[in-house]
Amino acid sequence: MADSSSSLPGPNREPLLDSLIDRLASLPSIGRKTAQRLAYHLLSRPLEEVAAFSSTISEARKNIHPCAICGNHTEHRACRICTHPRRNQALICVVEKPLEVAAFEKTGFFQGVYHVLGGCLSPLDGIGPQDLRLDALFQRAAAEDAEVILALNTNAEGEATAAYISQKLKGTSAKVSRLARGIPVGSDLEFVDELTMQRAMESRVEFG
Amino acid sequence: MADSSSSLPGPNREPLLDSLIDRLASLPSIGRKTAQRLAYHLLSRPLEEVAAFSSTISEARKNIHPCAICGNHTEHRACRICTHPRRNQALICVVEKPLEVAAFEKTGFFQGVYHVLGGCLSPLDGIGPQDLRLDALFQRAAAEDAEVILALNTNAEGEATAAYISQKLKGTSAKVSRLARGIPVGSDLEFVDELTMQRAMESRVEFG
Repeated sequence: MADSSSSLPGPNREPLLDSLIDRLASLPSIGRKTAQRLAYHLLSRPLEEVAAFSSTISEARKNIHPCAICGNHTEHRACRICTHPRRNQALICVVEKPLEVAAFEKTGFFQGVYHVLGGCLSPLDGIGPQDLRLDALFQRAAAEDAEVILALNTNAEGEATAAYISQKLKGTSAKVSRLARGIPVGSDLEFVDELTMQRAMESRVEFG
Repeated sequence: MADSSSSLPGPNREPLLDSLIDRLASLPSIGRKTAQRLAYHLLSRPLEEVAAFSSTISEARKNIHPCAICGNHTEHRACRICTHPRRNQALICVVEKPLEVAAFEKTGFFQGVYHVLGGCLSPLDGIGPQDLRLDALFQRAAAEDAEVILALNTNAEGEATAAYISQKLKGTSAKVSRLARGIPVGSDLEFVDELTMQRAMESRVEFG
């Protein structure tokens, strides 16, 4: 004889709630527990507030695209940095991602403009020069007689990309520089890694 | 004479991007920096994926509501716990919020059902008995000759709510209990606070 409970209706499933938690947990730095807390928070907020949140997400994704000049995020043809009348168009800081533009902008000291490559050269991942915004960079650099400041990560891909750009700009009017490497400001020497120590020693500058 | 730059167009503003970051930063435990990282992540994902994410959020908020029996989140009339044929309907664990149901369910040992009050009594915040799902609890408790387990926070509001419920159920067929208080499992005695130590001593049980 079958278990008597098997004739009862099965428990309700909650696919929407599960799917909401799954989607939140797929965001970077959001673990399962935080995703659940966020989901329950959203369910506790007024309907209109959550509708506005949801619509901001889809509208932002739909209307924000790469700046036609530098590749940074913008909802216009060109971003607020490229269109700013006081920024120096001949000082072009080359970065991998828009997030790095935001990091530089937060410091507030850089008066030039940016060029977002959209990645770095990585033959293993099948990313070649044609996949990055490199031609646009070379055109900008030539048009403005610019100084191109390479602000790429110091991993293999970043170094390869920096070498490629510098090679391509050799013999043009553009000057190429890169961010200084050395001891981070405020850091304790005993905690600085060996390669950084070595680079800082090699790149030592005259004091005073 | 006006500054020559004032005749140039002003810099573009990016209200959508700012608004996306603001809304993400308004979520609990999401700081400004994480909000920015999440926003830039969303902008880097395919349009359809972000549209699905946005629509899951609004659909979940629209279709998930309190369970007609216990007040937990559900997209049905009654939740998956209340409709489960093997759960003991006469063992009712009373909690403040749906998140606490999830916390108990994760342990997997509790075979009873829940009752979500939707808050605790708090005269200072203007929350009285009529604002909580208390009548529904008293009806359930009476109908099932239930044991009502109070699993409320140990702050003033939680204690007041527990006292109120216990008072109301006095003289009915319902039995009222509350979670044990004592030393958390696995904790080092030297780090346990004094009130917990005192309660644990007062509630000591025979060994073995």
